[in-house]
Amino acid sequence: MDKREQYISKAVISRLPRYYRYLGLLIDEKVERISSAALSRRMHVTASQIRQDLNHFGGFGQQGYGYNVRYLYNEIGMILGLDRTYHMIVIGSGHLGQAIASYVKFEKRGCCVEAMFDNNPELEGRQVRGLPVRMTDTLRDYLMHNQVDIAALTLPAAGAEEICPVLVECGIKAIWNFAHTDLTVPDDVVVENVHLSESLMQLTYRINHQEGSSRS
Amino acid sequence: MDKREQYISKAVISRLPRYYRYLGLLIDEKVERISSAALSRRMHVTASQIRQDLNHFGGFGQQGYGYNVRYLYNEIGMILGLDRTYHMIVIGSGHLGQAIASYVKFEKRGCCVEAMFDNNPELEGRQVRGLPVRMTDTLRDYLMHNQVDIAALTLPAAGAEEICPVLVECGIKAIWNFAHTDLTVPDDVVVENVHLSESLMQLTYRINHQEGSSRS
Repeated sequence: MDKREQYISKAVISRLPRYYRYLGLLIDEKVERISSAALSRRMHVTASQIRQDLNHFGGFGQQGYGYNVRYLYNEIGMILGLDRTYHMIVIGSGHLGQAIASYVKFEKRGCCVEAMFDNNPELEGRQVRGLPVRMTDTLRDYLMHNQVDIAALTLPAAGAEEICPVLVECGIKAIWNFAHTDLTVPDDVVVENVHLSESLMQLTYRINHQEGSSRS
Repeated sequence: MDKREQYISKAVISRLPRYYRYLGLLIDEKVERISSAALSRRMHVTASQIRQDLNHFGGFGQQGYGYNVRYLYNEIGMILGLDRTYHMIVIGSGHLGQAIASYVKFEKRGCCVEAMFDNNPELEGRQVRGLPVRMTDTLRDYLMHNQVDIAALTLPAAGAEEICPVLVECGIKAIWNFAHTDLTVPDDVVVENVHLSESLMQLTYRINHQEGSSRS
């Protein structure tokens, strides 16, 4: 791993997926180079912010020459860990779990959903994108015999809290948590939360305070 | 609207939904008062952060007396705009749209999904939680005859970009955008984005840099 990335701040990291998306669109459009000014107009952020952020990756040519789009795209992808594949399972096979399992874009990013679980016997064996829904009481056995890098939790809070210690015990190091609760995990386990209700509350707040269209 | 809230910073606002959730749990547990120290242990944030954040709402009693849980809960709910109801529609009736429409918790927060749309003729009339899926070409007509406060966009980026101007034209002021694109809207329209791929990339980043279990 390149040493220089140790100096990239958390704030920059949080902006990288958006750069990655715009650079991907530029590649689709066969754009090979782009100036910070042009990228700034597209992304509605200042050119100086872009220069500060992207100069971490050494993807800048001479003044007036612009960024090498594919080089930057690849560099940012590597920083984000998109140059490898991840074995993902989804626990909770309701609509949200099925949405996650059906999202083709995640696979393009190297995240492949390989098993679905649920504790509702009515769902047992039902196919979701070619994957049979397994019963949650077989989870431990599955984890012992299969490599799993990411567990997505798309089930209610109480269920997520119950299943979390099992995941930790079986050595899962990354949890993508959609349950509306804060999971307690050891220091070597990362949890990324998607709290939809909290996002909706940010929206209702902004509706009442008419903050305008700034990006959220 | 209370004037003092004008002085609440954006950072505090972004933390309010989490306080609201914990205060709601305390109410469920019939806890009437709680000290910042006790809340700090539950929420894994410092007591001084909690005091700074919550003192905006005047919900603090004497030293050693603690916060009035229900008072704070109601105050924060009001700031977040949860003391009114919102008429919501969902455009895109795939798994994600169905997940949004089926999420009972949103209704408790005053957000009621009242119509579902999709442009796939195979879904026409299919019931999602008692709501028939309508065809997107009837959206304009629906918006002319019904009050809609929030439009949730759970469809691919290209579809979202196509539908967004229609929403704006018909006077929609709030968009909950799940499409992986940045929508262009006038200043008086608020857009709250939920970019699932970007959340997943934050997770893959953290997997490779073992940041530990800090909340995301």
